[in-house]
Amino acid sequence: MAQLIPVSDPTDPRLADYVRLRDVNLRKSLEVEHGLFIAEGEKVIRRAVGTGHPVRSLLMASRWAAPLADLLDPLDAPVYIADDETLEQVAGFQVHRGALASMERLPLPTVEDRLTTAHRALVLEDLVDHANLDVPVQHTEPPRRILILEDLVDHGNVGAIYRCAAALGIDTIILSPRCADPLYRRAIKVSMGAVFSIPYARMTNWHDDLNIIRAVGFKLLALTPDQSAVPLDKAPMGERVALMLGSEGDGLSSHWLDEADERVCIPMSPAAMTNGVDSLNVTAAAAIACHSLMRS
Amino acid sequence: MAQLIPVSDPTDPRLADYVRLRDVNLRKSLEVEHGLFIAEGEKVIRRAVGTGHPVRSLLMASRWAAPLADLLDPLDAPVYIADDETLEQVAGFQVHRGALASMERLPLPTVEDRLTTAHRALVLEDLVDHANLDVPVQHTEPPRRILILEDLVDHGNVGAIYRCAAALGIDTIILSPRCADPLYRRAIKVSMGAVFSIPYARMTNWHDDLNIIRAVGFKLLALTPDQSAVPLDKAPMGERVALMLGSEGDGLSSHWLDEADERVCIPMSPAAMTNGVDSLNVTAAAAIACHSLMRS
Repeated sequence: MAQLIPVSDPTDPRLADYVRLRDVNLRKSLEVEHGLFIAEGEKVIRRAVGTGHPVRSLLMASRWAAPLADLLDPLDAPVYIADDETLEQVAGFQVHRGALASMERLPLPTVEDRLTTAHRALVLEDLVDHANLDVPVQHTEPPRRILILEDLVDHGNVGAIYRCAAALGIDTIILSPRCADPLYRRAIKVSMGAVFSIPYARMTNWHDDLNIIRAVGFKLLALTPDQSAVPLDKAPMGERVALMLGSEGDGLSSHWLDEADERVCIPMSPAAMTNGVDSLNVTAAAAIACHSLMRS
Repeated sequence: MAQLIPVSDPTDPRLADYVRLRDVNLRKSLEVEHGLFIAEGEKVIRRAVGTGHPVRSLLMASRWAAPLADLLDPLDAPVYIADDETLEQVAGFQVHRGALASMERLPLPTVEDRLTTAHRALVLEDLVDHANLDVPVQHTEPPRRILILEDLVDHGNVGAIYRCAAALGIDTIILSPRCADPLYRRAIKVSMGAVFSIPYARMTNWHDDLNIIRAVGFKLLALTPDQSAVPLDKAPMGERVALMLGSEGDGLSSHWLDEADERVCIPMSPAAMTNGVDSLNVTAAAAIACHSLMRS
Protein backbone atom coordinates (compact mmCIF):
# COMPACT_ATOMS: atom_id res chain seq x y z
CA MET A 1 0.00 0.00 0.00
CA ALA A 2 1.43 3.35 -1.06
CA GLN A 3 1.96 5.95 1.63
CA LEU A 4 0.13 9.24 1.01
CA ILE A 5 2.43 11.99 2.28
CA PRO A 6 1.19 15.58 2.45
CA VAL A 7 3.79 18.15 1.34
CA SER A 8 3.55 21.93 1.26
CA ASP A 9 7.13 23.18 0.95
CA PRO A 10 8.08 23.52 -2.73
CA THR A 11 11.77 23.29 -1.78
CA ASP A 12 11.25 19.91 -0.03
CA PRO A 13 14.20 17.78 -1.22
CA ARG A 14 11.87 14.79 -1.65
CA LEU A 15 10.32 16.66 -4.58
CA ALA A 16 13.66 17.19 -6.35
CA ASP A 17 12.65 14.91 -9.26
CA TYR A 18 9.85 17.33 -10.21
CA VAL A 19 11.52 20.72 -10.23
CA ARG A 20 11.25 23.19 -13.13
CA LEU A 21 9.76 20.81 -15.66
CA ARG A 22 9.89 23.40 -18.43
CA ASP A 23 13.61 24.11 -18.04
CA VAL A 24 14.82 21.90 -20.89
CA ASN A 25 18.52 22.12 -20.09
CA LEU A 26 18.07 21.44 -16.39
CA ARG A 27 15.70 18.54 -17.06
CA LYS A 28 17.98 16.94 -19.65
CA SER A 29 20.88 16.69 -17.23
CA LEU A 30 18.75 15.88 -14.17
CA GLU A 31 16.78 13.09 -15.85
CA VAL A 32 19.77 11.44 -17.48
CA GLU A 33 21.86 11.66 -14.32
CA HIS A 34 19.19 9.97 -12.22
CA GLY A 35 17.87 7.63 -14.93
CA LEU A 36 14.36 8.94 -14.51
CA PHE A 37 11.59 10.44 -16.59
CA ILE A 38 8.36 12.24 -15.71
CA ALA A 39 4.93 10.90 -16.65
CA GLU A 40 2.15 13.51 -16.55
CA GLY A 41 -1.55 12.84 -16.20
CA GLU A 42 -3.55 9.73 -15.36
CA LYS A 43 -3.49 8.11 -18.78
CA VAL A 44 0.26 8.49 -19.32
CA ILE A 45 1.07 7.37 -15.77
CA ARG A 46 -1.03 4.23 -16.21
CA ARG A 47 0.72 3.45 -19.49
CA ALA A 48 4.16 4.00 -18.05
CA VAL A 49 3.39 1.73 -15.08
CA GLY A 50 1.64 -0.81 -17.31
CA THR A 51 4.72 -1.11 -19.52
CA GLY A 52 6.86 -2.12 -16.57
CA HIS A 53 8.57 1.12 -15.58
CA PRO A 54 9.28 1.18 -11.83
CA VAL A 55 7.83 4.15 -9.94
CA ARG A 56 10.22 6.31 -7.90
CA SER A 57 7.45 8.50 -6.48
CA LEU A 58 4.27 10.34 -7.40
CA LEU A 59 3.24 13.95 -6.80
CA MET A 60 -0.39 14.93 -7.18
CA ALA A 61 -3.31 17.02 -6.03
CA SER A 62 -5.39 15.16 -3.46
CA ARG A 63 -8.33 14.81 -5.87
CA TRP A 64 -6.27 12.32 -7.90
CA ALA A 65 -5.74 9.82 -5.07
CA ALA A 66 -9.19 8.25 -5.50
CA PRO A 67 -9.22 7.81 -9.31
CA LEU A 68 -5.70 6.35 -9.14
CA ALA A 69 -6.36 4.20 -6.05
CA ASP A 70 -6.14 0.87 -7.91
CA LEU A 71 -2.73 1.86 -9.23
CA LEU A 72 -1.46 3.33 -5.95
CA ASP A 73 -2.55 0.44 -3.72
CA PRO A 74 0.09 -2.11 -4.74
CA LEU A 75 2.90 0.51 -4.91
CA ASP A 76 5.78 0.77 -2.49
CA ALA A 77 6.72 4.24 -3.71
CA PRO A 78 5.85 7.40 -1.79
CA VAL A 79 2.86 9.43 -3.04
CA TYR A 80 3.25 13.12 -2.27
CA ILE A 81 0.01 15.07 -1.98
CA ALA A 82 0.18 18.82 -2.58
CA ASP A 83 -2.24 21.63 -3.32
CA ASP A 84 -2.30 23.14 -6.82
CA GLU A 85 -0.23 26.14 -5.78
CA THR A 86 2.59 24.00 -4.38
CA LEU A 87 2.48 21.80 -7.49
CA GLU A 88 2.83 24.88 -9.66
CA GLN A 89 5.72 26.24 -7.58
CA VAL A 90 7.63 22.97 -7.86
CA ALA A 91 6.95 22.23 -11.53
CA GLY A 92 7.17 25.83 -12.70
CA PHE A 93 3.83 25.80 -14.48
CA GLN A 94 0.20 25.08 -13.76
CA VAL A 95 -0.09 21.28 -13.79
CA HIS A 96 -3.47 20.97 -15.49
CA ARG A 97 -3.37 17.20 -15.47
CA GLY A 98 -2.94 17.29 -11.68
CA ALA A 99 -0.75 14.19 -11.30
CA LEU A 100 2.95 13.57 -11.97
CA ALA A 101 5.00 10.41 -11.58
CA SER A 102 8.76 10.08 -11.49
CA MET A 103 9.59 6.78 -13.19
CA GLU A 104 12.76 4.79 -13.69
CA ARG A 105 14.02 4.32 -17.22
CA LEU A 106 14.41 0.73 -18.36
CA PRO A 107 17.82 -0.20 -19.77
CA LEU A 108 17.81 0.06 -23.57
CA PRO A 109 19.17 -2.90 -25.55
CA THR A 110 21.96 -2.37 -28.07
CA VAL A 111 20.95 -1.59 -31.64
CA GLU A 112 21.98 -5.08 -32.71
CA ASP A 113 20.03 -6.80 -29.96
CA ARG A 114 17.00 -4.67 -30.68
CA LEU A 115 16.99 -5.63 -34.33
CA THR A 116 17.82 -9.31 -34.07
CA THR A 117 15.90 -10.47 -31.03
CA ALA A 118 12.27 -11.36 -31.44
CA HIS A 119 11.07 -8.67 -29.11
CA ARG A 120 8.43 -8.83 -26.46
CA ALA A 121 5.85 -6.12 -26.95
CA LEU A 122 3.32 -5.07 -24.41
CA VAL A 123 -0.17 -4.85 -25.71
CA LEU A 124 -1.99 -2.10 -23.90
CA GLU A 125 -5.71 -2.19 -23.75
CA ASP A 126 -7.38 1.14 -24.17
CA LEU A 127 -6.92 2.07 -20.55
CA VAL A 128 -9.66 4.60 -20.38
CA ASP A 129 -12.48 2.62 -21.90
CA HIS A 130 -11.53 -0.88 -20.85
CA ALA A 131 -9.95 -2.68 -17.95
CA ASN A 132 -6.92 -1.11 -16.32
CA LEU A 133 -4.76 -4.12 -17.07
CA ASP A 134 -1.98 -4.62 -19.55
CA VAL A 135 -1.62 -7.87 -21.41
CA PRO A 136 1.92 -8.81 -22.34
CA VAL A 137 2.19 -10.88 -25.51
CA GLN A 138 5.14 -12.48 -27.23
CA HIS A 139 6.01 -11.08 -30.64
CA THR A 140 7.58 -13.86 -32.63
CA GLU A 141 8.78 -11.79 -35.58
CA PRO A 142 11.90 -9.66 -35.50
CA PRO A 143 11.34 -6.12 -36.87
CA ARG A 144 10.90 -5.64 -40.62
CA ARG A 145 10.03 -1.94 -40.98
CA ILE A 146 12.00 0.53 -38.91
CA LEU A 147 12.78 4.24 -38.75
CA ILE A 148 16.18 5.74 -38.01
CA LEU A 149 16.07 9.33 -36.71
CA GLU A 150 19.18 11.47 -37.11
CA ASP A 151 19.62 14.37 -34.67
CA LEU A 152 16.06 15.63 -34.39
CA VAL A 153 16.13 18.45 -31.85
CA ASP A 154 12.44 19.07 -31.19
CA HIS A 155 10.85 16.80 -28.58
CA GLY A 156 7.41 17.42 -30.05
CA ASN A 157 8.55 16.17 -33.44
CA VAL A 158 10.06 13.04 -31.89
CA GLY A 159 6.79 12.37 -30.06
CA ALA A 160 4.72 12.98 -33.19
CA ILE A 161 6.87 10.55 -35.18
CA TYR A 162 6.50 7.84 -32.50
CA ARG A 163 2.73 8.29 -32.66
CA CYS A 164 2.68 7.93 -36.47
CA ALA A 165 5.05 5.00 -36.34
CA ALA A 166 2.92 3.15 -33.79
CA ALA A 167 -0.32 3.80 -35.67
CA LEU A 168 1.12 2.81 -39.04
CA GLY A 169 2.93 -0.40 -38.20
CA ILE A 170 6.56 0.60 -37.76
CA ASP A 171 8.20 -2.12 -35.63
CA THR A 172 11.14 -0.29 -34.08
CA ILE A 173 12.82 3.12 -33.98
CA ILE A 174 16.59 3.64 -33.87
CA LEU A 175 17.89 7.03 -32.64
CA SER A 176 21.17 8.69 -33.52
CA PRO A 177 23.38 9.43 -30.50
CA ARG A 178 22.26 13.11 -30.42
CA CYS A 179 18.58 12.68 -31.29
CA ALA A 180 16.14 14.22 -28.79
CA ASP A 181 14.94 12.01 -25.93
CA PRO A 182 11.56 10.26 -26.50
CA LEU A 183 11.04 10.07 -22.72
CA TYR A 184 11.18 13.82 -22.28
CA ARG A 185 7.81 15.00 -20.93
CA ARG A 186 6.71 16.83 -24.08
CA ALA A 187 7.70 13.92 -26.36
CA ILE A 188 5.66 11.49 -24.24
CA LYS A 189 2.66 13.81 -24.32
CA VAL A 190 2.71 14.47 -28.09
CA SER A 191 3.22 10.74 -28.74
CA MET A 192 0.02 9.98 -26.79
CA GLY A 193 2.04 7.33 -24.97
CA ALA A 194 3.37 5.66 -28.13
CA VAL A 195 6.91 6.02 -26.76
CA PHE A 196 5.98 3.20 -24.36
CA SER A 197 4.60 0.84 -26.98
CA ILE A 198 7.15 1.05 -29.78
CA PRO A 199 10.55 -0.58 -29.08
CA TYR A 200 13.59 1.58 -29.67
CA ALA A 201 17.35 1.76 -29.18
CA ARG A 202 19.99 4.46 -29.39
CA MET A 203 23.17 4.25 -31.43
CA THR A 204 26.43 4.88 -29.65
CA ASN A 205 28.45 5.68 -32.77
CA TRP A 206 26.99 8.08 -35.32
CA HIS A 207 29.72 7.41 -37.85
CA ASP A 208 29.64 3.62 -37.92
CA ASP A 209 26.41 2.24 -36.49
CA LEU A 210 24.45 2.30 -39.75
CA ASN A 211 26.68 -0.63 -40.66
CA ILE A 212 25.23 -2.68 -37.81
CA ILE A 213 21.75 -2.10 -39.19
CA ARG A 214 22.77 -3.04 -42.71
CA ALA A 215 24.67 -6.09 -41.44
CA VAL A 216 21.54 -7.58 -39.88
CA GLY A 217 19.78 -7.38 -43.23
CA PHE A 218 18.15 -3.98 -43.51
CA LYS A 219 18.08 -1.97 -46.72
CA LEU A 220 18.82 1.66 -45.82
CA LEU A 221 16.55 4.23 -47.49
CA ALA A 222 17.45 7.89 -46.99
CA LEU A 223 14.48 10.27 -47.23
CA THR A 224 15.45 13.51 -48.94
CA PRO A 225 13.54 16.49 -50.37
CA ASP A 226 15.73 16.13 -53.49
CA GLN A 227 13.18 15.46 -56.24
CA SER A 228 15.71 13.62 -58.38
CA ALA A 229 15.68 10.74 -55.86
CA VAL A 230 13.47 7.67 -56.36
CA PRO A 231 9.82 8.34 -55.39
CA LEU A 232 9.22 6.47 -52.14
CA ASP A 233 6.24 4.55 -53.52
CA LYS A 234 8.36 3.24 -56.39
CA ALA A 235 11.42 2.22 -54.37
CA PRO A 236 11.98 -1.53 -54.24
CA MET A 237 11.49 -2.43 -50.59
CA GLY A 238 12.58 -5.96 -49.84
CA GLU A 239 12.17 -7.93 -46.64
CA ARG A 240 13.70 -5.52 -44.14
CA VAL A 241 13.63 -1.76 -44.66
CA ALA A 242 15.09 1.03 -42.54
CA LEU A 243 13.92 4.53 -43.44
CA MET A 244 16.28 7.31 -42.36
CA LEU A 245 14.85 10.73 -41.42
CA GLY A 246 17.03 13.80 -40.89
CA SER A 247 16.89 16.77 -38.56
CA GLU A 248 14.37 19.60 -38.85
CA GLY A 249 16.64 22.19 -40.41
CA ASP A 250 19.26 20.43 -42.46
CA GLY A 251 17.80 17.00 -43.16
CA LEU A 252 20.13 14.01 -43.25
CA SER A 253 23.86 14.59 -43.00
CA SER A 254 25.87 14.00 -46.16
CA HIS A 255 27.60 11.09 -44.40
CA TRP A 256 24.30 9.30 -43.85
CA LEU A 257 23.07 10.16 -47.36
CA ASP A 258 26.26 8.58 -48.69
CA GLU A 259 25.81 5.50 -46.52
CA ALA A 260 22.26 4.85 -47.75
CA ASP A 261 21.50 2.05 -50.18
CA GLU A 262 18.96 4.28 -51.91
CA ARG A 263 17.82 7.90 -51.71
CA VAL A 264 14.06 8.27 -51.79
CA CYS A 265 11.76 11.29 -51.94
CA ILE A 266 8.13 12.21 -51.53
CA PRO A 267 7.09 13.76 -54.86
CA MET A 268 6.00 17.38 -54.55
CA SER A 269 3.37 18.96 -56.77
CA PRO A 270 4.85 20.66 -59.85
CA ALA A 271 3.16 23.91 -58.77
CA ALA A 272 4.84 23.71 -55.37
CA MET A 273 8.25 23.77 -56.96
CA THR A 274 7.52 27.23 -58.33
CA ASN A 275 5.51 28.79 -55.52
CA GLY A 276 8.21 28.50 -52.90
CA VAL A 277 6.44 25.93 -50.69
CA ASP A 278 8.39 22.95 -51.87
CA SER A 279 9.06 20.88 -48.80
CA LEU A 280 7.25 19.14 -45.96
CA ASN A 281 8.08 19.36 -42.29
CA VAL A 282 9.68 16.26 -40.81
CA THR A 283 6.52 14.96 -39.10
CA ALA A 284 4.42 15.30 -42.27
CA ALA A 285 7.16 13.54 -44.24
CA ALA A 286 7.35 10.82 -41.58
CA ALA A 287 3.57 10.29 -41.70
CA ILE A 288 3.57 9.83 -45.46
CA ALA A 289 6.66 7.61 -45.30
CA CYS A 290 5.23 5.34 -42.58
CA HIS A 291 2.01 5.03 -44.58
CA SER A 292 4.02 4.00 -47.66
CA LEU A 293 6.09 1.50 -45.68
CA MET A 294 2.97 -0.10 -44.21
CA ARG A 295 1.58 -0.77 -47.66
CA SER A 296 4.84 -2.24 -48.98
CA MET B 1 10.02 56.32 -50.40
CA ALA B 2 9.05 54.98 -46.98
CA GLN B 3 9.60 57.28 -44.03
CA LEU B 4 11.83 55.79 -41.29
CA ILE B 5 10.38 56.97 -37.98
CA PRO B 6 12.28 56.32 -34.74
CA VAL B 7 10.02 55.26 -31.85
CA SER B 8 10.91 54.53 -28.23
CA ASP B 9 7.63 54.66 -26.30
CA PRO B 10 6.02 51.20 -26.24
CA THR B 11 2.63 52.85 -25.57
CA ASP B 12 2.88 55.02 -28.70
CA PRO B 13 -0.58 54.75 -30.32
CA ARG B 14 1.01 54.43 -33.76
CA LEU B 15 2.22 50.98 -32.63
CA ALA B 16 -1.26 49.78 -31.64
CA ASP B 17 -1.34 47.17 -34.43
CA TYR B 18 1.60 45.33 -32.81
CA VAL B 19 0.60 45.06 -29.16
CA ARG B 20 0.71 41.79 -27.20
CA LEU B 21 1.16 39.46 -30.14
CA ARG B 22 0.92 36.35 -27.95
CA ASP B 23 -2.43 37.29 -26.43
CA VAL B 24 -4.61 35.13 -28.69
CA ASN B 25 -7.95 36.54 -27.58
CA LEU B 26 -6.86 40.15 -27.86
CA ARG B 27 -5.27 39.55 -31.26
CA LYS B 28 -8.29 37.73 -32.67
CA SER B 29 -10.59 40.66 -31.98
CA LEU B 30 -8.05 43.37 -32.83
CA GLU B 31 -7.04 41.83 -36.16
CA VAL B 32 -10.57 41.09 -37.32
CA GLU B 33 -11.85 44.51 -36.25
CA HIS B 34 -9.15 46.32 -38.21
CA GLY B 35 -8.89 43.85 -41.10
CA LEU B 36 -5.18 43.38 -40.52
CA PHE B 37 -2.69 40.62 -39.91
CA ILE B 38 0.92 40.58 -38.76
CA ALA B 39 3.77 39.25 -40.89
CA GLU B 40 6.93 38.42 -38.96
CA GLY B 41 10.46 38.17 -40.32
CA GLU B 42 11.98 39.18 -43.65
CA LYS B 43 10.91 36.16 -45.66
CA VAL B 44 7.26 36.21 -44.57
CA ILE B 45 7.03 40.00 -45.02
CA ARG B 46 8.38 39.71 -48.57
CA ARG B 47 5.86 37.01 -49.37
CA ALA B 48 2.95 38.93 -47.92
CA VAL B 49 3.89 42.05 -49.90
CA GLY B 50 4.62 40.01 -53.02
CA THR B 51 1.15 38.47 -52.94
CA GLY B 52 -0.43 41.89 -53.08
CA HIS B 53 -1.28 42.62 -49.46
CA PRO B 54 -1.17 46.37 -48.77
CA VAL B 55 1.17 47.43 -45.96
CA ARG B 56 -0.30 49.47 -43.09
CA SER B 57 3.07 49.97 -41.39
CA LEU B 58 6.27 48.19 -40.40
CA LEU B 59 8.04 47.98 -37.06
CA MET B 60 11.63 46.81 -36.94
CA ALA B 61 15.05 47.01 -35.38
CA SER B 62 17.27 49.45 -37.31
CA ARG B 63 19.52 46.63 -38.55
CA TRP B 64 16.67 45.44 -40.80
CA ALA B 65 16.27 48.69 -42.75
CA ALA B 66 19.20 47.94 -45.06
CA PRO B 67 18.36 44.30 -45.97
CA LEU B 68 14.74 45.35 -46.62
CA ALA B 69 15.62 48.60 -48.44
CA ASP B 70 14.42 47.40 -51.85
CA LEU B 71 11.04 46.57 -50.35
CA LEU B 72 10.80 49.74 -48.24
CA ASP B 73 11.79 52.20 -50.98
CA PRO B 74 8.57 52.12 -53.03
CA LEU B 75 6.32 52.02 -49.91
CA ASP B 76 4.10 54.84 -48.73
CA ALA B 77 3.57 53.24 -45.33
CA PRO B 78 5.40 54.41 -42.21
CA VAL B 79 8.37 52.33 -41.04
CA TYR B 80 8.85 52.52 -37.29
CA ILE B 81 12.37 51.89 -36.06
CA ALA B 82 12.76 50.70 -32.47
CA ASP B 83 15.46 49.08 -30.34
CA ASP B 84 15.05 45.43 -29.32
CA GLU B 85 13.82 46.32 -25.85
CA THR B 86 11.01 48.54 -27.16
CA LEU B 87 10.08 45.88 -29.69
CA GLU B 88 9.84 43.32 -26.90
CA GLN B 89 7.75 45.63 -24.73
CA VAL B 90 5.27 46.25 -27.51
CA ALA B 91 5.01 42.71 -28.85
CA GLY B 92 5.20 41.01 -25.45
CA PHE B 93 8.01 38.67 -26.43
CA GLN B 94 11.53 38.84 -27.81
CA VAL B 95 11.09 39.39 -31.54
CA HIS B 96 13.93 37.17 -32.78
CA ARG B 97 13.14 37.83 -36.41
CA GLY B 98 13.54 41.58 -35.75
CA ALA B 99 10.96 42.86 -38.23
CA LEU B 100 7.16 42.99 -38.14
CA ALA B 101 4.69 44.26 -40.70
CA SER B 102 1.04 45.10 -40.23
CA MET B 103 -0.71 44.16 -43.45
CA GLU B 104 -4.23 44.59 -44.77
CA ARG B 105 -6.28 41.47 -45.40
CA LEU B 106 -7.56 41.04 -48.95
CA PRO B 107 -11.29 40.45 -49.33
CA LEU B 108 -12.04 36.72 -49.56
CA PRO B 109 -14.29 35.53 -52.39
CA THR B 110 -17.41 33.52 -51.63
CA VAL B 111 -17.05 29.74 -51.53
CA GLU B 112 -18.91 29.46 -54.83
CA ASP B 113 -16.77 32.06 -56.56
CA ARG B 114 -13.63 30.45 -55.23
CA LEU B 115 -14.57 27.07 -56.63
CA THR B 116 -16.01 28.08 -59.99
CA THR B 117 -13.77 30.89 -61.12
CA ALA B 118 -10.54 29.97 -62.81
CA HIS B 119 -8.45 31.60 -60.15
CA ARG B 120 -5.43 33.74 -60.51
CA ALA B 121 -2.58 32.32 -58.51
CA LEU B 122 0.54 34.16 -57.66
CA VAL B 123 3.64 32.23 -58.38
CA LEU B 124 6.30 33.21 -55.92
CA GLU B 125 9.87 32.73 -56.83
CA ASP B 126 12.01 31.51 -54.03
CA LEU B 127 12.53 34.94 -52.61
CA VAL B 128 15.69 34.17 -50.76
CA ASP B 129 17.65 32.51 -53.51
CA HIS B 130 16.27 34.25 -56.54
CA ALA B 131 15.04 37.67 -57.56
CA ASN B 132 12.80 39.55 -55.17
CA LEU B 133 10.00 39.73 -57.71
CA ASP B 134 6.74 37.89 -57.86
CA VAL B 135 5.34 36.71 -61.16
CA PRO B 136 1.56 36.59 -61.35
CA VAL B 137 0.27 33.94 -63.74
CA GLN B 138 -3.20 33.04 -64.87
CA HIS B 139 -4.40 29.62 -63.78
CA THR B 140 -6.78 28.40 -66.39
CA GLU B 141 -8.10 25.39 -64.51
CA PRO B 142 -10.67 25.68 -61.75
CA PRO B 143 -9.73 23.68 -58.61
CA ARG B 144 -10.00 19.88 -58.71
CA ARG B 145 -8.56 18.79 -55.36
CA ILE B 146 -9.58 20.74 -52.29
CA LEU B 147 -9.61 20.41 -48.50
CA ILE B 148 -12.46 21.50 -46.25
CA LEU B 149 -11.44 22.13 -42.62
CA GLU B 150 -14.11 21.95 -39.94
CA ASP B 151 -13.52 23.91 -36.73
CA LEU B 152 -9.79 23.33 -36.21
CA VAL B 153 -8.82 25.34 -33.15
CA ASP B 154 -5.02 25.20 -33.24
CA HIS B 155 -3.36 27.82 -35.45
CA GLY B 156 -0.23 25.67 -35.74
CA ASN B 157 -2.29 22.80 -37.16
CA VAL B 158 -3.98 25.08 -39.68
CA GLY B 159 -0.58 26.40 -40.79
CA ALA B 160 0.87 22.88 -41.03
CA ILE B 161 -2.05 21.74 -43.18
CA TYR B 162 -1.63 24.72 -45.55
CA ARG B 163 2.05 23.81 -45.91
CA CYS B 164 1.24 20.17 -46.77
CA ALA B 165 -1.55 21.22 -49.09
CA ALA B 166 0.69 23.61 -51.02
CA ALA B 167 3.53 21.10 -51.29
CA LEU B 168 1.24 18.26 -52.37
CA GLY B 169 -0.87 19.93 -55.01
CA ILE B 170 -4.12 20.84 -53.23
CA ASP B 171 -5.74 23.66 -55.25
CA THR B 172 -7.90 25.39 -52.65
CA ILE B 173 -8.87 25.22 -48.98
CA ILE B 174 -12.38 25.93 -47.66
CA LEU B 175 -12.74 26.79 -43.96
CA SER B 176 -15.78 26.24 -41.77
CA PRO B 177 -17.13 29.45 -40.19
CA ARG B 178 -15.38 28.70 -36.86
CA CYS B 179 -12.11 27.27 -38.16
CA ALA B 180 -8.96 28.99 -36.85
CA ASP B 181 -7.60 31.92 -38.89
CA PRO B 182 -4.79 31.05 -41.37
CA LEU B 183 -3.53 34.65 -41.18
CA TYR B 184 -2.88 34.45 -37.45
CA ARG B 185 0.86 34.96 -36.86
CA ARG B 186 1.58 31.41 -35.73
CA ALA B 187 -0.37 29.87 -38.61
CA ILE B 188 1.57 31.96 -41.14
CA LYS B 189 4.86 30.94 -39.52
CA VAL B 190 4.15 27.20 -39.37
CA SER B 191 2.83 27.29 -42.94
CA MET B 192 6.18 28.73 -44.12
CA GLY B 193 4.14 31.30 -46.03
CA ALA B 194 1.90 28.75 -47.77
CA VAL B 195 -1.15 30.66 -46.48
CA PHE B 196 -0.27 33.29 -49.10
CA SER B 197 0.08 30.91 -52.02
CA ILE B 198 -2.92 28.62 -51.65
CA PRO B 199 -6.32 30.17 -52.42
CA TYR B 200 -8.99 29.79 -49.76
CA ALA B 201 -12.46 30.91 -48.73
CA ARG B 202 -14.54 30.74 -45.58
CA MET B 203 -18.08 29.38 -45.37
CA THR B 204 -20.71 31.58 -43.84
CA ASN B 205 -23.17 28.81 -43.03
CA TRP B 206 -21.87 25.69 -41.34
CA HIS B 207 -25.13 23.82 -41.74
CA ASP B 208 -25.78 24.37 -45.45
CA ASP B 209 -22.62 25.39 -47.28
CA LEU B 210 -21.41 21.87 -48.06
CA ASN B 211 -24.28 21.87 -50.56
CA ILE B 212 -22.65 24.71 -52.46
CA ILE B 213 -19.50 22.65 -52.82
CA ARG B 214 -21.38 19.57 -53.96
CA ALA B 215 -23.51 21.65 -56.36
CA VAL B 216 -20.43 22.84 -58.26
CA GLY B 217 -19.41 19.25 -58.86
CA PHE B 218 -17.27 18.12 -55.94
CA LYS B 219 -17.52 14.67 -54.42
CA LEU B 220 -17.37 15.08 -50.63
CA LEU B 221 -15.08 12.63 -48.84
CA ALA B 222 -15.17 12.66 -45.03
CA LEU B 223 -11.94 11.50 -43.38
CA THR B 224 -12.66 9.48 -40.24
CA PRO B 225 -10.57 7.25 -37.96
CA ASP B 226 -13.38 4.67 -38.24
CA GLN B 227 -11.64 1.66 -39.76
CA SER B 228 -14.84 0.34 -41.29
CA ALA B 229 -14.81 3.26 -43.76
CA VAL B 230 -13.34 2.89 -47.28
CA PRO B 231 -9.53 3.08 -47.26
CA LEU B 232 -8.61 6.42 -48.80
CA ASP B 233 -6.37 4.84 -51.45
CA LYS B 234 -9.25 2.67 -52.63
CA ALA B 235 -11.93 5.36 -52.74
CA PRO B 236 -13.16 6.20 -56.25
CA MET B 237 -12.08 9.80 -56.73
CA GLY B 238 -13.61 11.30 -59.87
CA GLU B 239 -12.90 14.64 -61.45
CA ARG B 240 -13.39 16.96 -58.46
CA VAL B 241 -12.77 15.83 -54.90
CA ALA B 242 -13.21 17.69 -51.61
CA LEU B 243 -11.64 16.03 -48.59
CA MET B 244 -13.20 17.03 -45.25
CA LEU B 245 -11.00 17.11 -42.13
CA GLY B 246 -12.41 17.51 -38.62
CA SER B 247 -11.27 19.24 -35.47
CA GLU B 248 -8.39 18.03 -33.30
CA GLY B 249 -10.43 16.52 -30.50
CA ASP B 250 -13.69 15.28 -31.91
CA GLY B 251 -13.06 14.92 -35.63
CA LEU B 252 -15.86 15.75 -38.05
CA SER B 253 -19.29 16.58 -36.68
CA SER B 254 -22.00 13.98 -37.22
CA HIS B 255 -23.81 16.47 -39.47
CA TRP B 256 -20.84 16.70 -41.83
CA LEU B 257 -20.25 12.94 -41.70
CA ASP B 258 -23.88 12.48 -42.73
CA GLU B 259 -23.55 15.02 -45.54
CA ALA B 260 -20.51 13.30 -47.07
CA ASP B 261 -20.80 11.26 -50.25
CA GLU B 262 -18.31 8.77 -48.85
CA ARG B 263 -16.52 8.15 -45.54
CA VAL B 264 -12.86 7.33 -45.99
CA CYS B 265 -10.13 6.28 -43.55
CA ILE B 266 -6.39 5.87 -43.37
CA PRO B 267 -5.81 2.21 -42.50
CA MET B 268 -4.03 1.70 -39.17
CA SER B 269 -1.70 -1.18 -38.48
CA PRO B 270 -3.46 -4.19 -36.91
CA ALA B 271 -1.04 -3.98 -33.97
CA ALA B 272 -1.97 -0.34 -33.37
CA MET B 273 -5.58 -1.29 -32.83
CA THR B 274 -4.57 -3.33 -29.79
CA ASN B 275 -1.75 -1.23 -28.35
CA GLY B 276 -3.84 1.86 -27.72
CA VAL B 277 -2.12 4.10 -30.29
CA ASP B 278 -4.79 3.80 -32.92
CA SER B 279 -5.13 7.24 -34.41
CA LEU B 280 -3.13 9.96 -36.11
CA ASN B 281 -3.13 13.63 -35.28
CA VAL B 282 -4.91 15.85 -37.76
CA THR B 283 -1.75 17.16 -39.45
CA ALA B 284 -0.34 13.65 -39.98
CA ALA B 285 -3.69 12.52 -41.35
CA ALA B 286 -3.81 15.58 -43.63
CA ALA B 287 -0.30 14.89 -44.94
CA ILE B 288 -1.18 11.32 -45.87
CA ALA B 289 -4.50 12.37 -47.36
CA CYS B 290 -2.97 15.14 -49.51
CA HIS B 291 -0.35 12.68 -50.74
CA SER B 292 -3.11 10.23 -51.71
CA LEU B 293 -5.14 12.93 -53.47
CA MET B 294 -2.13 14.06 -55.46
CA ARG B 295 -1.66 10.57 -56.85
CA SER B 296 -5.32 10.14 -57.77
